[in-house]
Amino acid sequence: MKKHLGAHAFAFPTPVYIIGSYGKDGKPNAMNVAWGGICSSEPPCVAISVRKSRRTYDNIMEKKEFSVNIPSRAHMKEADYFGIASGHKTDKFAASGLHAAKCPNVDAPCIEEFPLCLECRVIHTAEIGQHVQFVGEIVNVMVEEACLDDAGLPDIEKLAPMLYDPAHSVYNATGEFLGKAFSVGKGFMKK
Amino acid sequence: MKKHLGAHAFAFPTPVYIIGSYGKDGKPNAMNVAWGGICSSEPPCVAISVRKSRRTYDNIMEKKEFSVNIPSRAHMKEADYFGIASGHKTDKFAASGLHAAKCPNVDAPCIEEFPLCLECRVIHTAEIGQHVQFVGEIVNVMVEEACLDDAGLPDIEKLAPMLYDPAHSVYNATGEFLGKAFSVGKGFMKK
Repeated sequence: MKKHLGAHAFAFPTPVYIIGSYGKDGKPNAMNVAWGGICSSEPPCVAISVRKSRRTYDNIMEKKEFSVNIPSRAHMKEADYFGIASGHKTDKFAASGLHAAKCPNVDAPCIEEFPLCLECRVIHTAEIGQHVQFVGEIVNVMVEEACLDDAGLPDIEKLAPMLYDPAHSVYNATGEFLGKAFSVGKGFMKK
Repeated sequence: MKKHLGAHAFAFPTPVYIIGSYGKDGKPNAMNVAWGGICSSEPPCVAISVRKSRRTYDNIMEKKEFSVNIPSRAHMKEADYFGIASGHKTDKFAASGLHAAKCPNVDAPCIEEFPLCLECRVIHTAEIGQHVQFVGEIVNVMVEEACLDDAGLPDIEKLAPMLYDPAHSVYNATGEFLGKAFSVGKGFMKK
């Protein structure tokens, strides 16, 4: 029996993306975003939603480029701080002690201490309710070498990314391997 | 030191959404989508990306409504099957043994055996590369009563949703509680 909860943004999981952007003045900013996800395979694209009041909104409108950085749980406190402080008032990099480096392919900062960075160029913008959705084409993925597996692919256990639970505003870890996609369901194909 | 992997849809985590839709003929279909995420708080909205070749694309274009169903790991095989079989050729509900029920507020089916269902109305559509992104306003959330906590909110451990790893095409579990958002990072505010 299902209970009706009304209209809420309750989906599981949502990600923890830290958006890197530069201001007109060249200063790097970082913002914590849970509203986003991959939205195309070819070209690979990621969507993120940002309110107009944010410094990150001004920065992306100016530069049309941004980065999506995925923190490990080891940096949960810094990642959370990026979602509390305002980029209009604070140099979040100075306060957190983390370091920004210019991305090689886009005019946005990469967060050096975080293991995965998507370099993105805006190809579509839409106003969705209180948020503006930026769709970025992922022009390059950068991954910390220690977080790659033997095949040279990002390893989710080594990355140790976090999940955001929108019903309780908490962070969770990722868990164990369950099964192979496009494979474990094949049994039903015979029926 | 970060290694450059080129352009890929590598973000962690991505969700496992099963999209419910009705055809012109009233037949329910279900499709597995990993490209999606929440994209607005007010009104709550969720974005999903679907290729034009899919039955789900035809159905949503016709009805302008759909559901996002989140399976528990107990139904990993059925959820995976929904991503392998074609809705053009198969009655996926008959083959999987799962049951579709009409959503109370939108013209789309809910999957009875899955613990969480978002009832969605399309408010924005965009072509992004090979995919079409549908943004649905979430008009109601339905959750299996056994998956609610004492406060009446969906409990991630009871829901037991899955993650999709786009680098390896595998499913992972969600993991343990790590910390409170908008809280664990407050220490940096004093600096």
